[in-house]
Amino acid sequence: MGSALAFPARENGHEVRLVGTHLDREIIDECRKSDKHPKFNKAFPAGLKYYQVEEMEAAIDGCDMIIGGVSSFGVDWFADVVLPKIPDSIPVITVTKGLMDTPDGRLLTYPDLWQAKLDELGKKTKLFAIGGPCTSYELVAHDQTEVAFCGRDIETLKWLRDVMATDYYHISLSTDVTGIESAVALKNGYALGIALTIGLNQKEFGIDSELHFNSQAAIFGQAVKEMYKLLDYQGAATLENMSVGYGDLYVTVYGGRTRLVGILLGRGLNIDEAKAELNGVTLESLVVAERVARAVKVAHERGRLNKADFPLLCHVDEIIIQKMPVNMPWEDFTFVYNK
Amino acid sequence: MGSALAFPARENGHEVRLVGTHLDREIIDECRKSDKHPKFNKAFPAGLKYYQVEEMEAAIDGCDMIIGGVSSFGVDWFADVVLPKIPDSIPVITVTKGLMDTPDGRLLTYPDLWQAKLDELGKKTKLFAIGGPCTSYELVAHDQTEVAFCGRDIETLKWLRDVMATDYYHISLSTDVTGIESAVALKNGYALGIALTIGLNQKEFGIDSELHFNSQAAIFGQAVKEMYKLLDYQGAATLENMSVGYGDLYVTVYGGRTRLVGILLGRGLNIDEAKAELNGVTLESLVVAERVARAVKVAHERGRLNKADFPLLCHVDEIIIQKMPVNMPWEDFTFVYNK
Repeated sequence: MGSALAFPARENGHEVRLVGTHLDREIIDECRKSDKHPKFNKAFPAGLKYYQVEEMEAAIDGCDMIIGGVSSFGVDWFADVVLPKIPDSIPVITVTKGLMDTPDGRLLTYPDLWQAKLDELGKKTKLFAIGGPCTSYELVAHDQTEVAFCGRDIETLKWLRDVMATDYYHISLSTDVTGIESAVALKNGYALGIALTIGLNQKEFGIDSELHFNSQAAIFGQAVKEMYKLLDYQGAATLENMSVGYGDLYVTVYGGRTRLVGILLGRGLNIDEAKAELNGVTLESLVVAERVARAVKVAHERGRLNKADFPLLCHVDEIIIQKMPVNMPWEDFTFVYNK
Repeated sequence: MGSALAFPARENGHEVRLVGTHLDREIIDECRKSDKHPKFNKAFPAGLKYYQVEEMEAAIDGCDMIIGGVSSFGVDWFADVVLPKIPDSIPVITVTKGLMDTPDGRLLTYPDLWQAKLDELGKKTKLFAIGGPCTSYELVAHDQTEVAFCGRDIETLKWLRDVMATDYYHISLSTDVTGIESAVALKNGYALGIALTIGLNQKEFGIDSELHFNSQAAIFGQAVKEMYKLLDYQGAATLENMSVGYGDLYVTVYGGRTRLVGILLGRGLNIDEAKAELNGVTLESLVVAERVARAVKVAHERGRLNKADFPLLCHVDEIIIQKMPVNMPWEDFTFVYNK
């Protein structure tokens, strides 16, 4: 996603410097050769500059803004290795989606974690983040895309929007960092839940059977309820956050590995077997679902949430952590509203 | 959908009598021959009885409940021809989804309209309705399905649930008829909006190009906002109604003709050309979208709603009524949230 954002940035006429982590050495080599990221199906706009990780200081020197695009598993590395190198005057905006749970059942955003690191370092760097339904491949393809930039400083947010907005990349702004970041992280376990129904149907009707949508929509509706209650727990159940979160849920159902692992689980594989099919790749979405479920359990014990409001999340957690087979608690998703 | 509900009803051991309207004569003939609805891919459970429209009284005689399954275009016929024949003691539950706008910009549900007819007739028949994401074909296939039964009388609702619930048909209950019925009707224009993006992408990238989901999700997120504001206008912006409405939106995007006409419009056909491709079939979803848009315009003039909150609905209305080409106002979907 970090690389994909080079498209709108460069197309807007800005100088763009793409820096790889220590894991991206071959990608940067390839970019230098072909001006093309090996995972994208078209070349970057002309004029990008590419940097290996040890050249990071040269890339940072003279920058106006920095986009951080590490995965969830690079959050600590970004805090420890990258943030200290960035002058206080350069705003940093990140695309990493996720939440971290605390022993007392709170859910922290990655900007929260990075801000703590900045405070520890005595640095004044301003942090921003990007949420919303956006897959990198489709951004590269110039599919019409709506995202939200969030951060505490609305003036810098407006400036960041001016830098990045194009006729296909449309940017909302929000000072509710917890809300936007929670909304787009929470959807992970729920996207998995929808994918489970696809696998369940393949088990029932055959692998090549038509997709059914009643069951997917049933899970979607339940996800709407559970995500809302989690946003509310975060003090962030606004309509703007819901629209970003539910939109992101919609796109994630169709997104690569979360969908695949959900289908495999639904077909009857257990979590270890499903992961083995994915060659042991650790999935960010599973990690987030596990953390959120853990926070819900602690909050339940402390009387701040009711576990019974989260039957879908709890079942996803049983599947991931207790390695239980999929046995969707459909009746638990019904409600009685008697005003 | 009325016929599809014969499956859970009959599988639960109830006697089921399927009555066709005057338009369904051949369907009833075919059912009598083969025990199969010509549009379904499997036979009814054994033991159904079939009735032509002029045999309706015999079908009604001795019933415990009646399920109404006319289309939007049969709403008046149902009021004028069917309701007067039904004894006051038999509850009626309907699956027809839709809204009717009034000259002063209100939106009435079909149960509202039928209740007015019952009041006029001095009848005490109890009315109920079914909302939620459920396509008939998938119900017939026993795909896991979550719906909501609504009505004023919670005790009869519970009884109706007992009659109809199966291990694949899961039923929530709500006394908020306006809320459930509005939620499932409002989604129509928005499902069309999502389908438009599919056609827009086919125009841009080729008819056989991969589906893109960023743009679909962008519309989904905007639909979340606009549907919420319309539910709020109906005095019904509860989490239960949102979950039913957004779930129904999810399933409708994949539903037959609304999807097809959206794609055709997105590709560049105007509304007349798109309808011609569908052999002039009038689409319920277009009718509802038109009515809701008309109500929004009146409510705007009267200061009760702000048209600027509904850029997607307004554009769908321009496409349907003013026959304008699709030109999605993407930037109008962005927001600035500065708390």
